[in-house]
Amino acid sequence: MYNVAILGASGYTGAELVRLIATHPDMKVAALSGNSKAGMKMSDVYPHLRHMDLPELTTIEDVDFDGIDLVFCALPHATSQKVIAALPTTVKIVDLSADFRLRDPAAYKKWYGNDHAALDLQAEAVYGLTEFYRDDIRKARLVAGTGCNAATGQFALRPLIAAGVIDLDRIVIDLQAAVSGAGRALKENLLHAELSENAHGYAVGGTHRHLGEFDQEFSAIAGRPVTVQFTPHLIPANRGILATIYVDGDAKVIHETLVKAYADEVFIEVLPFGETPAIKHVRASNFCHIGVVADRIEGRAIVIATLDNLTKGSSGQALQNANLMLGLDETAGLMSAPVYP
Amino acid sequence: MYNVAILGASGYTGAELVRLIATHPDMKVAALSGNSKAGMKMSDVYPHLRHMDLPELTTIEDVDFDGIDLVFCALPHATSQKVIAALPTTVKIVDLSADFRLRDPAAYKKWYGNDHAALDLQAEAVYGLTEFYRDDIRKARLVAGTGCNAATGQFALRPLIAAGVIDLDRIVIDLQAAVSGAGRALKENLLHAELSENAHGYAVGGTHRHLGEFDQEFSAIAGRPVTVQFTPHLIPANRGILATIYVDGDAKVIHETLVKAYADEVFIEVLPFGETPAIKHVRASNFCHIGVVADRIEGRAIVIATLDNLTKGSSGQALQNANLMLGLDETAGLMSAPVYP
Amino acid sequence: MYNVAILGASGYTGAELVRLIATHPDMKVAALSGNSKAGMKMSDVYPHLRHMDLPELTTIEDVDFDGIDLVFCALPHATSQKVIAALPTTVKIVDLSADFRLRDPAAYKKWYGNDHAALDLQAEAVYGLTEFYRDDIRKARLVAGTGCNAATGQFALRPLIAAGVIDLDRIVIDLQAAVSGAGRALKENLLHAELSENAHGYAVGGTHRHLGEFDQEFSAIAGRPVTVQFTPHLIPANRGILATIYVDGDAKVIHETLVKAYADEVFIEVLPFGETPAIKHVRASNFCHIGVVADRIEGRAIVIATLDNLTKGSSGQALQNANLMLGLDETAGLMSAPVYP
Amino acid sequence: MYNVAILGASGYTGAELVRLIATHPDMKVAALSGNSKAGMKMSDVYPHLRHMDLPELTTIEDVDFDGIDLVFCALPHATSQKVIAALPTTVKIVDLSADFRLRDPAAYKKWYGNDHAALDLQAEAVYGLTEFYRDDIRKARLVAGTGCNAATGQFALRPLIAAGVIDLDRIVIDLQAAVSGAGRALKENLLHAELSENAHGYAVGGTHRHLGEFDQEFSAIAGRPVTVQFTPHLIPANRGILATIYVDGDAKVIHETLVKAYADEVFIEVLPFGETPAIKHVRASNFCHIGVVADRIEGRAIVIATLDNLTKGSSGQALQNANLMLGLDETAGLMSAPVYP
Repeated sequence: MYNVAILGASGYTGAELVRLIATHPDMKVAALSGNSKAGMKMSDVYPHLRHMDLPELTTIEDVDFDGIDLVFCALPHATSQKVIAALPTTVKIVDLSADFRLRDPAAYKKWYGNDHAALDLQAEAVYGLTEFYRDDIRKARLVAGTGCNAATGQFALRPLIAAGVIDLDRIVIDLQAAVSGAGRALKENLLHAELSENAHGYAVGGTHRHLGEFDQEFSAIAGRPVTVQFTPHLIPANRGILATIYVDGDAKVIHETLVKAYADEVFIEVLPFGETPAIKHVRASNFCHIGVVADRIEGRAIVIATLDNLTKGSSGQALQNANLMLGLDETAGLMSAPVYP
Repeated sequence: MYNVAILGASGYTGAELVRLIATHPDMKVAALSGNSKAGMKMSDVYPHLRHMDLPELTTIEDVDFDGIDLVFCALPHATSQKVIAALPTTVKIVDLSADFRLRDPAAYKKWYGNDHAALDLQAEAVYGLTEFYRDDIRKARLVAGTGCNAATGQFALRPLIAAGVIDLDRIVIDLQAAVSGAGRALKENLLHAELSENAHGYAVGGTHRHLGEFDQEFSAIAGRPVTVQFTPHLIPANRGILATIYVDGDAKVIHETLVKAYADEVFIEVLPFGETPAIKHVRASNFCHIGVVADRIEGRAIVIATLDNLTKGSSGQALQNANLMLGLDETAGLMSAPVYP
Repeated sequence: MYNVAILGASGYTGAELVRLIATHPDMKVAALSGNSKAGMKMSDVYPHLRHMDLPELTTIEDVDFDGIDLVFCALPHATSQKVIAALPTTVKIVDLSADFRLRDPAAYKKWYGNDHAALDLQAEAVYGLTEFYRDDIRKARLVAGTGCNAATGQFALRPLIAAGVIDLDRIVIDLQAAVSGAGRALKENLLHAELSENAHGYAVGGTHRHLGEFDQEFSAIAGRPVTVQFTPHLIPANRGILATIYVDGDAKVIHETLVKAYADEVFIEVLPFGETPAIKHVRASNFCHIGVVADRIEGRAIVIATLDNLTKGSSGQALQNANLMLGLDETAGLMSAPVYP
Repeated sequence: MYNVAILGASGYTGAELVRLIATHPDMKVAALSGNSKAGMKMSDVYPHLRHMDLPELTTIEDVDFDGIDLVFCALPHATSQKVIAALPTTVKIVDLSADFRLRDPAAYKKWYGNDHAALDLQAEAVYGLTEFYRDDIRKARLVAGTGCNAATGQFALRPLIAAGVIDLDRIVIDLQAAVSGAGRALKENLLHAELSENAHGYAVGGTHRHLGEFDQEFSAIAGRPVTVQFTPHLIPANRGILATIYVDGDAKVIHETLVKAYADEVFIEVLPFGETPAIKHVRASNFCHIGVVADRIEGRAIVIATLDNLTKGSSGQALQNANLMLGLDETAGLMSAPVYP
C-alpha cells in the first residue's frame, strides 16, 4: 500500500483524486492539505466524501512527508513551483498545475506572465500525456499533468501530425468545455444563473494558455513550428470537453492512422469511421472517445474527441501517471465505467 | 386589427408566435390549428398561455379563412407545401417550414428527399431573411421563413461575402444549437436525461439541410459557387444558437464591414471589435449579436453570431415579416428585451 | 411619460426592472445607480440590454432626483433604509429590499439582526402585495416589495385564512426556489458546478427570514398568532418558485375559496380543481398559477402555487405597484406571456 | 466468478447494472436481453459502455440460462412476473420491477390495475430493502427491488416508526425526484426543453404507486394502519431523490434513533444533528444521507433523506442484494465514491 498526499485538496481536482483513490487497491490518502481550509474535515468541504475515513485538511507546512511515497500537487500555477521546489527529494510528484508543462522558460513566461522560479525542476519534469510519454513517466520523479483542453486536442492530433497526414497550416480546434474546468472559483460567469441556458466563446483568437502546450508538442512532433487556431467555449455542463477539429487531409487515412495509433491503448477508443462521440459517454471516467468524419468538401475531415476534464483531463491522468511511477498496474483505480445518464 | 391564423400551433414555433402576438398592438390570433390536438384548448397544450383568450385548436379543414388576413404556417416540411397550395389566394402567408426556402427544385429534392408539390409557389416565394429581402417581403404574398441555423450564419457572413473581404473557399461554421430547434418531437436524444450534461455534434461533415440555404444564398451573393463547412452541435440549453465562424480575412476590415452593413438595423447588434456574444444575451428576444476577433494567425478572423432560434431564428422573424406584409411597423410586438438570467 | 430611477441596478432585480420597463408605454429609465459599477455602461454589466438607450450607471450621490417621479430601490436590506431616508420627499418609492416589509421594529430586529434606522418610514410604508393592498398602494409614497417566497405562500394561503377554511395550526409550506432569488452574489453554493444536478433544503426548521412576513400577515388576517412550517429548497433552475402547501381542510371548499378570491385578478390564475401548476408555465411573466388537490386522507388538501421570483415575486410586483402609485393602468408593461420552453 | 444475466438491459437500470458490475471482482455479465434492441451491440444502445467486452443484446427467449447464476430482471411491471415465472428454478432472481414488492394481491391490483399472474412467486418474494431484510435476502431465490421513492422514505422513517417516536397520523413526505426515475421513455414531459428550468408536482394527493409500499411496510412495522401523505415533484436533474419529511416528534430523539439504527450500516450516513443533505452528495453512488432538524414549532421535526434513484434506489440496491444471495461481500462493486461535481 502506497501512501499519497494531496496538496490543494479543496479544489475539484483534489476531490476527484480522493474519489478515484477511494477504490484504488494499492493507494491510500495519507495527507490532505488545503491552506484556506486547514483544520476542517474533508467531509465539511466535500460532504460527498463523508463515508470515507480521511485525514483532516492541514496547511502544507503541517504535512509530514515521512512515509509519503507520492505527492499529488493540485495547487494554482506559480504557487505549485515554489511548493514543489521545497519538497523532500525522496517523494515522487505528480503536479496538476501548469507550472511544469512548458519546457521553454520563455514560453512559460509568455503564456503565464511570470518568470519560472524552479528552472531546474522545469528541465527535469516529464510531460504527463501518458499514452505518449509512458516510458519517461515510469522513470520520472516529477510529472507535469497536461492542460485538460490540451490533452483533448493532442489525443486527436498527435498521431496525425506524426504520420504527416494533415496540412499543418490548416488546423482549427473548436472546443466546448464544461464549467468544472474553471475550478471552484467564485467568478460571476461561473454562477448557475449566468451559465445555465448560456454558451459563449472565451479567450477567442488564440489567447488561451493551453496553446503553449499545443505549440510545444505539435512543433516538436512535426519538427517545424505548428500554429493551430483554437477557440474554447463554455457550455452549461459540469464535466467534459468536446473538441471538434477541422483538418485538411483524407478522412479515411486519418481514421486508419488513429485506429492504428491507439490499437493497444485501454483508455482511448476510436469510433467506427463516420461515428462521432458525445461528452456524456465518457463522463466521470478515464476514457477518451475519438470520431472521424469526412467533410463534403473533398480533402477535408472533422475529428471530434471527448474526455472528462476532471478525470482523463487531470486527476485520472494524474493517477494513471502515479500508477506508472510507483510500478503499479497503469489502470488501477481507473476502470470505472462512465456514469450515464 | 389584423386577424391571423396559426396552422400547426401545437409546436414550439406556434406557441412562440402566440407569445409574441400576445402583446402585439395590431394583431389578433383568430384561429389555431393543430391536427393531432384538434378540439383541445390551447391552454391544455401550453398551460403558460392560460391567461390568454385564445380560440380552440381545430383541424386545418375547420379553419374559416374568411376574415383571416395572414396565415402563419408552422407545419412540417412536405406537409406545408400541400396545405399552402390549398389556401385561398386572398390570405398572405408566412411559412415557417423548409418548403419554400430553396428556389431550385433540384436543390429542394437533394436536401429534402422529395419532389416539390407546389413548384409555382416555390417560384413565387420570397426568402424571409428580413434584413436582406425587406422590399420583396413587403410586396410578397408568400414568404418562406429561413432555417434558424441558416439565419445565424447568414447574419455573420452575407455582408462579408458581398464585400469580398473573406476567402470564399475557407469558411468554417461551427455552431452550437439549443434543443428547442428540434421541436417538441419525442426523440430519445432530446430527453432531459440524455441531453443534460451532454454535448455532441450532429449531421457532421456537411449533411445538415440548412446547407442548402447557405449554398443558395452565398453563391448568389458571390456570383460563383460557395461551399462552406458546417458542423452543428447540440448543447444542453433550450433556446439559442451560437455560430463560431472561422474565416480568412482581415479582422478589422471584417468588423467595419459588419458595422456598416447593420448600422441602421434595429435587431442586429455588432459588438465593439474584440468582444464576443453569448447565447443568453439574446434569449427570448428578436435580437442578434455579432462579434469579431482577430486570430493570432495573421489574416484569419473569428466571427461569432448568436440569436434565439425560436424568436429571431423563426417565429420572431416570421412576425417581423408579417408586419412588413401588412404594412405595420416592422418592430411591432418584437421589442421585448432578452430575458436574463 | 414618467421618469424613474433604479437604485442598485446592477443586481438581477434591477436588470429585470429595466427589461420590463423597456416596453412600458408610459415609463422611462432616467437614472441608474450601482455603486460598485459606477461609471460603467449598463450594457457592460448586462449585455442583454445592449440595444437599449440607457443612462450610465452612477453612484447614488450622483443621481439627480429632479425630474424623477418614482424611485425603484433594489439595494440590500439595511442599506436601503438609509438611502430611502435621504431621498427627496417629492419622489415616490418602491423598495425591493426587506427593510420595510415588517411593521413591528422588534420583528424586524429579530429576523434581520439590526435595529431599524428609519422607524417613521417603517410605519408609513405599505406592504406591497398588490392584490391585497391595492387601495393603500395607490395612495402610498413608500411601498415595500414583498419577499418572493413570502408572496408565493401568501397568494395560496391568504384567502384560506381569511375565510377560515383551514386549520391554522397545521400549515406546512414546502417550497422549491430557483437560484436567481439569491441574486448575483459570489457564493460557492450558487456556482453552476455546485448547483446543477443538485437540490437541497436550506434554512430548514423555520429560520428563513420570509417567515417574518408570513407571521405578520397571517396573524393579522386571522386575528391570532399563526405559525407556519416552512422549508425552502434550492433547485437547479434560474427563475421560479413552486410552493407545495399541506393544509387541513376540505379541498373543494379551498378551491372555491381561491376561485372566488381571484375571480377579478388579471395575474392570478386558479387552475381547475385537481390540476397542478409548473414553474415554467409562469417563467419571465407576472402571472401566478395556483392549483388545489384533495389528499387521499380525508380532510387534507394540497395547494400548489407558482410564480417567477424575479417578476411577480419582485420586479414585476414592483412595477405593478409603481403603475398604481402613478395612476397608470396597473398592468402596463406586465402583460407579456411567459417564455416557454 | 459468477455469471449474471440482465433482462431488460436497454433501460437505465439495466445500463446502471452493467456500469456497477464493470468493476465487480466476482461477477461477470454473461447475457443481456432487450427485446426491442435484440441483435444490437450494447455499445450501440449505450456508447458509454463501448470499452467493455459485453455480450450482444438478444431476446429473452435467446438467453441461455445454463451457467447463469443470477438474473437481474429490469423489465416493466406486469411483464416481469410472466418472464420470471418462466425462468429455470435454478437461477436466483433480483427483480427491479414493481411486480413483487407488494405481498397482498389486492394491494397489487389496487395500485397496478391488473391481477397478479404469479401469486405463488409473489408469496415467496423477499422485499429488497437490504438494510431491513438482510437475513431473508441471503436465503431468498427471488428478491423484489423496492421503488426508489419508497426506499428513500423508508430509510428516513422505518426506525422512527419502529421506535414509536413520531405521530403516525402526521407524516408528510414531500419529495423531489430527478428525471431518470422515469426511465428512457419517450414522454413529452421528459424532454429537455420541457423539464429544464421547470419543476412541478405529479401524482399529487396520494396517487403515486410507491404509496403501496409505504402502506405495506409502515403498517407492518407499526402493527396498525399507517397512511402517509406523499407528494413527489419532478426537478430538472438526472439522478437523485431528496425526501423532505415533516413529522411530529422530538427532533433530538429522532436523530438519536436514526444514528443508533444505522450505526453499523456502511451505506447509510446520518449527518450531525441540524445538518441537511444534498442530492449531489450521493450522486452515482450507493450511499444514502439523512439529516434531522428541529422545527421552530416545538414537537415537530424535519427529516431529509437523499439517495441516487438509479444506484441505491434500484440497481445498486439490486447488486447489494445479489451479493448477499451469492454469498459475496455485500459491498462488492458498490464502494465507489459519489461523483462530484
